[in-house]
Amino acid sequence: MKLRISIFGVGLIGGSWALAMRHAGMTHEIIGCSRSENHLAEAKKLGVIDRYTLDPAEAVRDADVVILAVPLGAMQSVCKQIQAHLSPQAILTDVGSAKASVIEAVRQGLGEIPPRFVPGHPIAGTEKSGVSAAFDSLFDGRRVILTPLEHTDPSAVNRVRGLWELTGAQVELMAVEEHDQVLAATSHLPHILAFGLVDCLAGMREQEEIFRYAAGGFKDFTRIASSDPVMWRDICLANREAILKIMALYQKDLQQLTTAIEQGNGDELLGIFQRAKAARDRFCL
Amino acid sequence: MKLRISIFGVGLIGGSWALAMRHAGMTHEIIGCSRSENHLAEAKKLGVIDRYTLDPAEAVRDADVVILAVPLGAMQSVCKQIQAHLSPQAILTDVGSAKASVIEAVRQGLGEIPPRFVPGHPIAGTEKSGVSAAFDSLFDGRRVILTPLEHTDPSAVNRVRGLWELTGAQVELMAVEEHDQVLAATSHLPHILAFGLVDCLAGMREQEEIFRYAAGGFKDFTRIASSDPVMWRDICLANREAILKIMALYQKDLQQLTTAIEQGNGDELLGIFQRAKAARDRFCL
Repeated sequence: MKLRISIFGVGLIGGSWALAMRHAGMTHEIIGCSRSENHLAEAKKLGVIDRYTLDPAEAVRDADVVILAVPLGAMQSVCKQIQAHLSPQAILTDVGSAKASVIEAVRQGLGEIPPRFVPGHPIAGTEKSGVSAAFDSLFDGRRVILTPLEHTDPSAVNRVRGLWELTGAQVELMAVEEHDQVLAATSHLPHILAFGLVDCLAGMREQEEIFRYAAGGFKDFTRIASSDPVMWRDICLANREAILKIMALYQKDLQQLTTAIEQGNGDELLGIFQRAKAARDRFCL
Repeated sequence: MKLRISIFGVGLIGGSWALAMRHAGMTHEIIGCSRSENHLAEAKKLGVIDRYTLDPAEAVRDADVVILAVPLGAMQSVCKQIQAHLSPQAILTDVGSAKASVIEAVRQGLGEIPPRFVPGHPIAGTEKSGVSAAFDSLFDGRRVILTPLEHTDPSAVNRVRGLWELTGAQVELMAVEEHDQVLAATSHLPHILAFGLVDCLAGMREQEEIFRYAAGGFKDFTRIASSDPVMWRDICLANREAILKIMALYQKDLQQLTTAIEQGNGDELLGIFQRAKAARDRFCL
């Protein structure tokens, strides 16, 4: 069965998902909706969507699947705007990086959490953003986490899982809190640290000089500081609790490193660096 | 004129320099010296050096150029061992990442800083280490910083500059303190942050789970945490003052970010992220 798909927010993730659905031959029609007609026109021109509308009510009319790919801060207002128009048969899902926050936004926006709402998050992306960066194999080989709630309709979960599997992604289920903690550690914290480092160096008087001598390691380390600032502001606000928890832990570790350097404690430094290298080599290669 | 070159420490940097010199047809003979006969035998087998010795005195006999590519912590003892044997005509240089520390090690080890000692530092490397990771184009297109002192012989500086230029590197002169501050900011701090992050996550109970969901951004961000722990312990101890200065600045910035997240101050977060993205896009692309 070919699907009528509505995508709210046709950027890197929403656009790549549209292309992957198209590539899989799943689409009857893809309708894009956002607040920016420019972005939507570009998405249509690039062949990512078939048509677009600025009217959320029109976007969800007769949709089989509605996917929310807007920044976290816009989730609630989109839900409010579609509330009276979303068919109870439609499957609703999202791609937000902080699940508790999206679930709360859906509850506030729709007045309830519909049984056919399946919270989801593809662990994929690049430091680029916008529909021009979208490509149909973005999710191939990546993990997608779904965090269904107790009352979520299992057939809706299976449907969303099946669509993601068509993109080449590996789908897993996880509890909401677990997702938010794991992502705070592996994604949100590194982004904050990278943004913070580049801003710190950019604030120094010798910044021209400093960046001139940045080598490959620095470029790799700070690549994620080229990510979309609005998206990351929203993530920091949306996953605040889990982020603050891991930041406190990290700052404690950093203080320990500082003290070891102050005291010239080579054994302690070596121990930390060796443990880190062993974990990095074990898990990331 | 073909050169007799002595390399102390035939790892990634020393080995790649040897290969580049060979590639440029500059070498009469390359002699390797270190404390590990296994490493030296491997370097000879790989064709990186012509012969090796465990005896520093023998290694520098009749050498035209002596390059110190051992970890920072070993510089002084190598200098002590060659002190009575180094010809005053020989050019002595090094590749250490913290210049004040190497200069002090040379002063202590040799009893003086010879006019033909040219402190140097190639801003190149990978997270790999050891001679098996060496390749002859490692320095091609990279920057090499020389930090000659007031009494350094200009002809020795020109000689070392010329050899580095044969590797394809772009050579620049810089004051010692400036080098150490710039490198603390662009290289030493990012390595410490990356080691710290991986160690922090590896210490959590859910570490298997956490690393399983690490995506591309995390892998890029933590690649440098696979670097050689001994080398990085030595760098932290050798460039302690400059590192502590930049770490204090960074920790202040991190605290500011923490406060902004705690207070839900989206405007401040957005400002920091936008400034960072602008600097990253401007300087690194």
